[in-house]
Amino acid sequence: MGIDVMYHYTVGDNPERLKDMYKMALKDCDIVVTTGGLGPTQDDLTKEMACQVLEDELILNEEAMRRLNEYAAKMGRPMTENNRKQAYLPSRATVFQNNAGSAPGFALEKEGKHIICMPGPPREMKAMWNESVVPYPQGMSDGALYYRIIRCFGIGESLLETELLDLIDGQTDPTLATYAKEGECQVRVASKRATLEEAKAAVDEMIKKVDERVGEFVYSHDDENLVDVVARKLMDQGLTLASAESCTGGMFAAAMTDVPGISSVFHRGYVTYSNEAKMDILGVKEETLAAHGAVSEETAREMVEGLARVSGADVCVSVTGIAGPGGGTPEKPVGLVYMGFKHGDNVQVIKYQGHSNSRAWNRSHSLLSMLDLINKNI
Amino acid sequence: MGIDVMYHYTVGDNPERLKDMYKMALKDCDIVVTTGGLGPTQDDLTKEMACQVLEDELILNEEAMRRLNEYAAKMGRPMTENNRKQAYLPSRATVFQNNAGSAPGFALEKEGKHIICMPGPPREMKAMWNESVVPYPQGMSDGALYYRIIRCFGIGESLLETELLDLIDGQTDPTLATYAKEGECQVRVASKRATLEEAKAAVDEMIKKVDERVGEFVYSHDDENLVDVVARKLMDQGLTLASAESCTGGMFAAAMTDVPGISSVFHRGYVTYSNEAKMDILGVKEETLAAHGAVSEETAREMVEGLARVSGADVCVSVTGIAGPGGGTPEKPVGLVYMGFKHGDNVQVIKYQGHSNSRAWNRSHSLLSMLDLINKNI
Repeated sequence: MGIDVMYHYTVGDNPERLKDMYKMALKDCDIVVTTGGLGPTQDDLTKEMACQVLEDELILNEEAMRRLNEYAAKMGRPMTENNRKQAYLPSRATVFQNNAGSAPGFALEKEGKHIICMPGPPREMKAMWNESVVPYPQGMSDGALYYRIIRCFGIGESLLETELLDLIDGQTDPTLATYAKEGECQVRVASKRATLEEAKAAVDEMIKKVDERVGEFVYSHDDENLVDVVARKLMDQGLTLASAESCTGGMFAAAMTDVPGISSVFHRGYVTYSNEAKMDILGVKEETLAAHGAVSEETAREMVEGLARVSGADVCVSVTGIAGPGGGTPEKPVGLVYMGFKHGDNVQVIKYQGHSNSRAWNRSHSLLSMLDLINKNI
Repeated sequence: MGIDVMYHYTVGDNPERLKDMYKMALKDCDIVVTTGGLGPTQDDLTKEMACQVLEDELILNEEAMRRLNEYAAKMGRPMTENNRKQAYLPSRATVFQNNAGSAPGFALEKEGKHIICMPGPPREMKAMWNESVVPYPQGMSDGALYYRIIRCFGIGESLLETELLDLIDGQTDPTLATYAKEGECQVRVASKRATLEEAKAAVDEMIKKVDERVGEFVYSHDDENLVDVVARKLMDQGLTLASAESCTGGMFAAAMTDVPGISSVFHRGYVTYSNEAKMDILGVKEETLAAHGAVSEETAREMVEGLARVSGADVCVSVTGIAGPGGGTPEKPVGLVYMGFKHGDNVQVIKYQGHSNSRAWNRSHSLLSMLDLINKNI
């Protein structure tokens, strides 16, 4: 929005400390945004302290009460006395209704100082911010900030930074910043100018320069998840997809089916965790498992070929690996993963040796590698 | 450690704001722990400001310099001038060497006020905390804190608090606090006493009282995830498990296989997202799907019965539902889910009507419901 962020605080449910925090923040800043402490319970004190600091009092808000009653009825829960507390709001409040939960939010102002209170549960808070709160602070910005987030897979943060170093160092606007995030890297390109149009033009021009350096690793210029990029490609091309997972154990299917509308292209997936499941379901040969083991190029290939036979899907993907923390050997250490891909005659098996002992890291990196493999081949 | 945590702050690399933050925190608190800002670059100011606030000066620390040279050699990097900056530490500092990176940490004291500075990268910070820092603040605690976190499923936060209200209000130690967390609720029971034994006894006694009120909803007294509780029960009893998922699309299998060692009991799972997959893989009847639809008690039952046949697992679980945001009808609205369970002769189908339009909420709640169904029946 072009508003500078000065501090972030976390404070317990203690009235005096809450009040001190408000006062200290408002000394330096024009706007304080809070999350949490609007609920029905005794230790929910955020709005009481906001009233003390900006000199207002809580009164019953009829619309909020009507919505609370409606919400309780919809959830089939009794309307308890402490629930009613949530309908009391500062008398001068700009109210933000809660479309995803019970406690309403609000903004309260005095002499140019603003407190914006939102509920704590992330789902409710995010919905309220996007649906209702945004226009309130937006009008107070003295310029326009625009940014885009470029997402990359297959390059480390340090190498990414090296490739972009002169762009990062030489620029005051747009600014570039790199972030590492669970096996991925991001570049945030931001510009703050007098108008949004100017900021957009500056960012877009810089993005072209970034693409010239590291474009081969970029999968999104707009902060999309890799799974969404892959899902959109499949849906646009009308290609059906099926999966056979060992070490990721269903994470790939879960990620794909998180995308609304995916049922048009994703019809089935198999979690073939044991050797028996790999043989029974996918027709992996007992000799292959005996000769090369479950974590091998040969097994990944038979998995994906078997999957194509049993599923009839256009695009098939398989994975088998050692997620850890146990189960590694000198020949096949933790982090070793084979991924199979098949689309018509394009059949590939990719090997990746991870260096982490973390089960979670190895599993989520395998998921990203499978998505990357599809993204680069359709 | 029994040390009360009053605040958490985040502040940018700005000398004045950093100094103000130290001063404000030290007004109320005896110890300030910082992470970040110890690195080689210009905007790394944490230790300079610590020196200004607690009146000391930075001097070259020979041991730190020796280690920095060693680290640079190991990483094959040149020892740049700005890297040397990291070897300058407050003259009165208690130094904490960095075994996982370059910048050393330290503690600085003046008149009973302490600043403990650690590097920002989580891997370095955690290693330094655990290996070197812990004994420093531990000696300052004036008592022992003990807490346990009770986790519940199937009860809302408001009703949970109502059931426990007199325990919450009437007690100063142990204290009870309730938390809502994505479809679950938690009760934190904490006691601070002269000795750890006293604190433990007080917490355990209070937990008995909580169990008397809401025990039927409790699945852990030790902050375990429901999936870990279920996995342990299955492994302890040597019961194999298989899953057939529609609306959760692999989340259940992914959650189970996140548990190390689960391969002894979980061998396979099916993601039967389309009607064809339900018929082909699980033998759900075409007539059943035509007469009752994919989201129905009958389909969930045929799914779990088919799963038992094809998998041979001891415990089988199925799920079919409308995750949303689209796909709902007046008769079958978004959030409607049927879950099937089979363990020997115990065959059940549970219906749940969620009230959220959120795909993510409906899917994660379905996953918890499936785990709860298993937990209550084995």
